[in-house]
Parts: sequence; structure tokens; C-alpha cells
Amino acid sequence: MQRRLLSKLITATVLAASAIAVSPIAAAKAKQPTMSEADFEKADSLYFQRCAGCHGVLRKGATGKSLEPKNTLKKGQKRLEKIIALGTEGGMNNFDDIMSKKEISMLATYIQIDPPKPPEMSLDLMKKRHKVFVQPKDYPSKPQHNRNWENFFLVIERDAGKIAVVDGDKHEIVTHIDTGYAVHVLKTVEHHDFLKAKNPGRFWYIMGRDGLMTKVDLWAKPEKMKVASVQVGYDARDVAVSGDGKYVIGGVYWPPHFVILEAETMMPIKVVSSRGVNVDGNYVEESRVAAVYDTPMAPTWMVSMKELGQMWQVDYSDIENLRIDKIDSAKFLHDGFFDPTGRYFQIAANASDKMVIIDTKERKLEAMIDVDKLPHPGPGANWIDPKCGQVSGTTHLGTGLVTVWGNDPKGNKKAAWKECYTVETDGPGVFLRTHPKSKYVWADQTKTPEPEIQQSVQVIDKKTREIVKTIQLTTKKGYAAVHFEFNADGSEVWVSIWNRSDSLKPNGEIVIFDAKTLKKKATIKGFYAPTGKFNVYNRVNHVT
Amino acid sequence: MQRRLLSKLITATVLAASAIAVSPIAAAKAKQPTMSEADFEKADSLYFQRCAGCHGVLRKGATGKSLEPKNTLKKGQKRLEKIIALGTEGGMNNFDDIMSKKEISMLATYIQIDPPKPPEMSLDLMKKRHKVFVQPKDYPSKPQHNRNWENFFLVIERDAGKIAVVDGDKHEIVTHIDTGYAVHVLKTVEHHDFLKAKNPGRFWYIMGRDGLMTKVDLWAKPEKMKVASVQVGYDARDVAVSGDGKYVIGGVYWPPHFVILEAETMMPIKVVSSRGVNVDGNYVEESRVAAVYDTPMAPTWMVSMKELGQMWQVDYSDIENLRIDKIDSAKFLHDGFFDPTGRYFQIAANASDKMVIIDTKERKLEAMIDVDKLPHPGPGANWIDPKCGQVSGTTHLGTGLVTVWGNDPKGNKKAAWKECYTVETDGPGVFLRTHPKSKYVWADQTKTPEPEIQQSVQVIDKKTREIVKTIQLTTKKGYAAVHFEFNADGSEVWVSIWNRSDSLKPNGEIVIFDAKTLKKKATIKGFYAPTGKFNVYNRVNHVT
Repeated sequence: MQRRLLSKLITATVLAASAIAVSPIAAAKAKQPTMSEADFEKADSLYFQRCAGCHGVLRKGATGKSLEPKNTLKKGQKRLEKIIALGTEGGMNNFDDIMSKKEISMLATYIQIDPPKPPEMSLDLMKKRHKVFVQPKDYPSKPQHNRNWENFFLVIERDAGKIAVVDGDKHEIVTHIDTGYAVHVLKTVEHHDFLKAKNPGRFWYIMGRDGLMTKVDLWAKPEKMKVASVQVGYDARDVAVSGDGKYVIGGVYWPPHFVILEAETMMPIKVVSSRGVNVDGNYVEESRVAAVYDTPMAPTWMVSMKELGQMWQVDYSDIENLRIDKIDSAKFLHDGFFDPTGRYFQIAANASDKMVIIDTKERKLEAMIDVDKLPHPGPGANWIDPKCGQVSGTTHLGTGLVTVWGNDPKGNKKAAWKECYTVETDGPGVFLRTHPKSKYVWADQTKTPEPEIQQSVQVIDKKTREIVKTIQLTTKKGYAAVHFEFNADGSEVWVSIWNRSDSLKPNGEIVIFDAKTLKKKATIKGFYAPTGKFNVYNRVNHVT
Repeated sequence: MQRRLLSKLITATVLAASAIAVSPIAAAKAKQPTMSEADFEKADSLYFQRCAGCHGVLRKGATGKSLEPKNTLKKGQKRLEKIIALGTEGGMNNFDDIMSKKEISMLATYIQIDPPKPPEMSLDLMKKRHKVFVQPKDYPSKPQHNRNWENFFLVIERDAGKIAVVDGDKHEIVTHIDTGYAVHVLKTVEHHDFLKAKNPGRFWYIMGRDGLMTKVDLWAKPEKMKVASVQVGYDARDVAVSGDGKYVIGGVYWPPHFVILEAETMMPIKVVSSRGVNVDGNYVEESRVAAVYDTPMAPTWMVSMKELGQMWQVDYSDIENLRIDKIDSAKFLHDGFFDPTGRYFQIAANASDKMVIIDTKERKLEAMIDVDKLPHPGPGANWIDPKCGQVSGTTHLGTGLVTVWGNDPKGNKKAAWKECYTVETDGPGVFLRTHPKSKYVWADQTKTPEPEIQQSVQVIDKKTREIVKTIQLTTKKGYAAVHFEFNADGSEVWVSIWNRSDSLKPNGEIVIFDAKTLKKKATIKGFYAPTGKFNVYNRVNHVT
């Protein structure tokens, strides 16, 4: 008689699967360095701000390598300090320009010690952290200022935990609003083929990296613009609105989940865990929600599951009977954008060096395109190429290249979902952007360690496919050029000068170029580390 | 300038949310009793066999209470021993008839010590544990015996880790087949409105509690019936087949997941985690898959998420773009059955004292019916009531009652999804069963501590709604009567005599009654603790 019992099975499995007995683990623990509680806390904060995005709070690695003690102890203090200071060929930034030697040393020690596991967050706790500053019944029925709010730009002021509201007609800052820390993205309701919300672009929803979500009303007086907030996690990245304007979704890194909220009040109503089994068949505890997008052709959100290598298409037409289509693709999913029709969602699987194409109408994988190292399109760019027809492009975090592919399976089947051409830039970048009226595509090089390249952007001619201009925006040490946004009529290109090294001071700038002549037109000063910019009109009408 | 940082947030949250500082935890640990490694292992095995089903491997509780040390330490050794020996009013079994005093004492100590956390299981590991005994190309093209296999009964032989194949015409055991330990359920392909598999009922798929799945071919010679096996977890309960016969799904308790396999070879192809956030908004690590069912009206499985209180309707028409509808209902979902049309799935939410009704065509919640304590319908029963029309019924684990409700929203809207009547039985039971040709509904009382009631079943008249007969099947100490199945033409009712106290010996029996006269017709001897029975014809045609 054979009984197969849990304890024996488990013992056998653990030994067979990992070949790790108890004693080596204990030995590894004994070898871990120690640090004072105060230093550990400081290092923990630094790690969260600068490292967790790529390496994970459990340090199992994702876009970055695993930083568990079993790996870091082998490297040792000196080598780790060097890597943190100078970066690596693999795509890791240098941090010697924004961290002190002491900080680098603490961080190197910290990552040789077992990571603390953060707590869960219940729906009840979120509800306790929900605040309404202006009741929906008290919202104004018309704009309380004479500005052209449809040409407002909302600008992320990264480290200060603020956004700036900027008048795009007058080139002046309207106000700074306290939000979550290091906002990654902000969103408003977008036009759908079949859903039309009232006053699109009026309300904006902002996700801080600390999981604090903020709702902003652009019709209010500047000091009244923040109308509600709620915390939905401890580490978060993205937010999206439903096409009918009823719901907001918050995508969270830790706890690994997404949260659905009533858009009107920001009251959270449903939490869905993103923990799951990845496309390789392994369970992932820290399965992060990298990005979320509303889909113009279906009442759904695209929720990208970074570590799982799956896109979850979440249907918001019935929240209590929640339909999710879990679409297998490739790891690690990061950020994406739509083709001009709004049917195909194009997202970077950065560790797989692929662009993943989802057919949001059929809710299934359409194609995967092999590209170069670590694609990162940001808000993306679509244009017409003389040979390939309708195309999209991406920058790369891992190499100085813009990759361009066909995206029109109906009109140009031959070119669809294949690389059309590439353009070599001076260095790795983060963002690419254009406008239907513009002859040019703009690419930044923010991921390049060399300062003068990091401070420069490059302009590609859509017809000749060649770089026609390189513009260095600043020469100041520790300052970088990053991210583009066009104004509502497409006549201007806005570029950020990101004061990385003194990011808590209002020394950042936005430089405005004439979209046709490529000449500098104006500068707006007084930003706290400005990075991403969101023009109301362009985002509502998904002009990419 | 305010920075909201992970470490501070976490500290604040932990302190605010639970009000537990470090020292009380350490104190609690210090208070935990100790036991030898050998005794701990024995108790761990006992716990897995007898307790984990209701209390969970992490002991956080579900149908049973939480047995974490923070709770058990308060009760202490003596009180815990008494509860294990005698059971409780709350629905917990007595174990003094099947466990020694030493075993009860060890178990009481074990549950005061922190539970060991079992490992994950990857798709790769499952593939390594996949065995093919007979290649599909070598399957016989016609039955290799002269028996009427469509009237075979497959009988679970619980503790021996076997099933028995029984000839329903000849009332004789054909063979015993080694399977997983303590099989909970076995399934074959069922008739659909729109999907018709070849030779339904030929192949059976069996899930052991140890996660071992076995495929059986009823056309083979008895010694060749086991054709493939695979382990998909360490603790599991249920299995189902797709309506087209292509896929099999295994529902697993630990790791909390379900697995999709190719039915032909039993090769696992996809793992989906069931960890999630429950209907109260709390994350559940041990979120178990209680039961899985094929749906006759859609190419989907109903997957019941015990702790989450959600039914996941999993669409198997496109495995790589896997649609799941997560239908909110109530905790803790256990087992269910269909209405006669096959549209409505009716499942017990036992801790909520509700029957949950899912509309599998619309993939949404249809209704919830308040019933008495701990409903448990097992394979369920449907019949026609003189007043309420089409009805379904359930037994209860927590009270001696059969609850009956209307299930025909089209034909009898007034009675639909409302309690129609209840029948008091002599004690709590596990299974209820009838047949369209039968005038009676049979109910067992296996959950009753009094031996003579536990050994008796009761027969209810469909017309008068009254108990017309009580049949005591055995008087032997430690033996119980359990579970019913009709034969293919509905003329016989089969009842198990479950030899609980000597379950590894072939002392169990099946007693066969004439379905009309209710008189004993035959006895088949030689079973190892027989419990559930599955008639080929009735299961293929979902006769309930």
C-alpha cells in the first residue's frame, strides 16, 4: 500500500527541484553583512526610488537582474558599488551623478541582505485612505478661468511628488498640484468609436509611484483643482479611464494587483490580484502590473502583466462578472500604444526584444515582431512611410536605435508586423513622438551615459528616414533632455530639461520648438524635474 | 517636500492595520510546543489526510476554523484533543473512531506549531512527472471485453488510492486500478448541446488528493486500463473534460492553481494561478480550486474558487488567449450541479449558507438562495414537484435537512431561485440523488456523529415530500453509509458501505436497491473504503 503524503512529497520536491539543503541557506544568511536600522531604512528608501522599478521589491529581477543575496553576495561590496556608480552595458544607468558615495555604499550593503517583504493592502484599507476634497455635486458647471484648457499640458514633476498644469497657448505654468510621489503617468477619458464621455479631457487621473491616485478637475480654479485622492498600493505605475468615463483602473506593482474605482468619487470598488503563472509555466509572486490602457474599439482595458508575459484584456462593462482575456505573449511587458485605427495595441516585451501586437477587437495575440535590445516606445509614434505605408516606431533602452514596422494588415499586408527600417541614433533613449501634421519624428537619448548625448534629442525625417537635426538642450551637469509632446494644433514640440541632480529644486525647464522649422521658440522655467508631458487635446483624441 | 517612501508606509501600515508589534509575535513563537521530527512528520501526514481539506494547508481556515498558532495556543493541548476526538456542533467530524489517542495528541500539538509552507509546482516539473503507459496510437479500436461498459460504475476507493471498475449488469468488480490517493472525483466527457465527442464515457480522468491525475480507458483489457498519469499539484480535488474531449482541467488546492492538459496524452500545457482577492477585498494566498465542471451550453468550464467566493468560467476554445469570466458570489464555494437544461449551474457557498446560481450561457450570476447551515449537494438532484414545478435539492453538512428550490425561471418564474420546501432528516448528510424515472429522492446522513444515523439513508417521496423509508445499511462500528448512484436504466440505486475504520482492507461493500420497491436486491463485496460512484451512462448524459 502506497500513500503519497504531503510532507514526503514536499521534502522530495524541494530537494530534487532546487538541490538546496537547509545548511547552505543558513550559511548564506550568516554571510550577509549587517547595517544599522537607520541606514537600512535609508537604503530601503533609496532602493524603492531608484532600483525597485527594474529589479522588483522582492529583488527577483525583471528588466534588471536578480539582486537576491544568493547573487549579490558572490559579487561583494566593492564590485556592487562600482556597478551602481557607473552602470553596465546591459542597460543599467549610472548613479554616480545623483547619489553620494555614502549612499552608493549603503545600497551595495543593503542588497546583500534579505529583502523585507511588504504587506498586502485590502480594499478596506484603501477605502480608509480615500479622500474627497471637492464633492462631485460641488463641481463647477463651466470652466472657472478664461484659459484654453483643451491646450493645457500636464507635466510630471517627478521627485517632488507634483504635477504642473501649463497653459499651452500662453506658455505659462498655471499651478503645481501635490500628487503621489514620482508620478509615472496620468490619463483622461479618450474618444471611442462607440463610447463618448461628457467633456473628455476635463478630469485627469494621476498615479504616483507610492500608489497614491489623484483626480484633477481642469475646470476648477487652480487652488481647487485637486478634487479626490486614494491610495491603492505601495508601489504603482499606471492608471486608465473607461471609455464611458465611469471607471478608473489603477495598475499596481506591490501588492501585485489592479484596482477598479468609481471615476466620479475615486472610491475603490474592486481589487484583482495579478499574481499568476508566467508564459514559461512558473508561478510569479511579484507579478507587476506595468501599464494600463483604455481600448478605443472595445469596452475594455489592456492591462500589461510585466513578469507574466501576458496582456489581460479586462472588460469593464460588467464589473461584478468581470471578463478577463489572458493573452499570452512574451516577457517583460512594459509600455505600449495603439495603431492609428485604435484596433491594434503595440507593446514592448523588453526582455524578449519584441514588440507584441494585440488585436483588441478579437481580444487575442495578432503578432510578435523581433526588434533590437529593450524596446521602449513610451507614448509611441505613428506615421506614413513612402515604402511601407502606415508605420509605427520605438526607441530602445538598450541601444541607440529607432525601429520602424508596418502596422496596416488591411491596407498593406506585406509590410504589416515586420520591421520596415531602423535608424541609428547617438544613444539609447526612452521616448519617440510625432504628429500627423509633422514631417518629423523626435527621439530622445535619455538612457545614454555620455552627458552630451543624454542632453541631446534627434529629429528624423519621415520621408528620407534620416536624422536631419541633433539638438543639445542643455550642457549642465546632471541635467538630461527627455520626452516630447506636441501642442493641440501640432505646431509646437515641447521637450523637458530634467534636472536630475537637483530634482527637488525648480530648476527644470521645458523648451518649445517650432514643429516645422525645428527652431527654438520659447522656454518655460520653474519646473521640479519635469519629465512626461500630456497635452489635453492630443491625449483625448489619441494623436500619436 | 513630502516623500512617501515604501519602508515608512509599510511600517505605518503594519502597525495601524494589525496593531501587532514584533515582541508579541516573538512571544507567541516562544510559547509554541515542540515535538520530534518523526512525530511532526506523522502529524503533518495526518493533518494533510484528515484536516487540510477544511482548514487549509496554511491553516488559515475555510469551511473549518483557522488553526494558526495564534488561535490554537489559546485553546491548549487538552481542549484541542477533545475537539479532535469528539467533533463540534459547528460541523466538525469526530475522529475518535478512526484515530488513536496518540495520533489525536500528536495532531493537537502539531496545530500549535507554525505550519510549514509547501513549495510551488512549475509546468516543467509536471511534465517530468508525466507518464504514458499506453500510447494513443496503441489504443484499441473496439472494446477488448464483452461487458456492457456503458453501464460500468467507477467507484472511489478512498484511502487505498484506487478506483474499482464495476460491471453494472453483472454486479461484479472488473478490476481495481491504482490511482492518486483518496480520489475525490472522476469525470468523463459529457454530452453538449453543440459539442459531441467521439465515444463519450470511454475515457475517464481521475484526480487524486495528492494531485496525481490518471486516465483510464474502459475499452481496454482490465490490466491495461490505466493509460497515462501526471502529477499537477500536492493537494487537489477535481477534474473535468472539455465538451469536445480535447482538454482536461485539473483543479488544485496547493499550489493554488488549475492546470489544462491535452486529454489524449495527459500532457500538461498551461497552468493558471488561482491566488486572488476575495469578494470582501482581501488577498488570499491559499485560494483553492474546489471543483471544476464542463458546461453543456458553452465551451467553458466552471471553476469554483473556494476562498475567493468567485466562480471562474474558463473558456477552452482558445487556450493561448484564455478568456476567464470571474463571477462574484459568496464564500466558500464547494460543489455543485446543473439544472435539467444544463444552463444554470447551482453551487453551494457553504460558509455563507447559500446556493449560488450561475447563468453559464450569459456567464454571470443569476441568483443566490439562502439555505440552512453548510449546504452540500454532491452530484445533486433535480425533479418535478407538484407545486413548485421543476426543482433541485441539497443536503447539508451542518444540519439534518434537505432543502428544495425552484430552478425554472422560464416555465415557473414565481418559484425560481426561491426555497420551495425543506424536509427534516435524522442528521447532516453529504449526498442527495435521484433519477428522472424514480419516484424518490435519496439522502445520506454521513456527517452525523451518531453511528446508527450515519449508517442509515433516508428516502423522500417526490409527491408527498415526506420521508417514506429509513434504511440502515450496516451496524458495524466505524462503518458508514454514503453516496448514491443509479444504474443506466434507472432501475437500481447503489449505496456504499464505507469501512472508515479499516479503510485499507477490502471490507467495504456496495448495496444495490430496487429503485421502485426500495428493497435490497444485491450486495457487491470486496471494496477498499468505497465512497463516490460514477455510472458511465448517467454521467455522460448528466442524469441528475
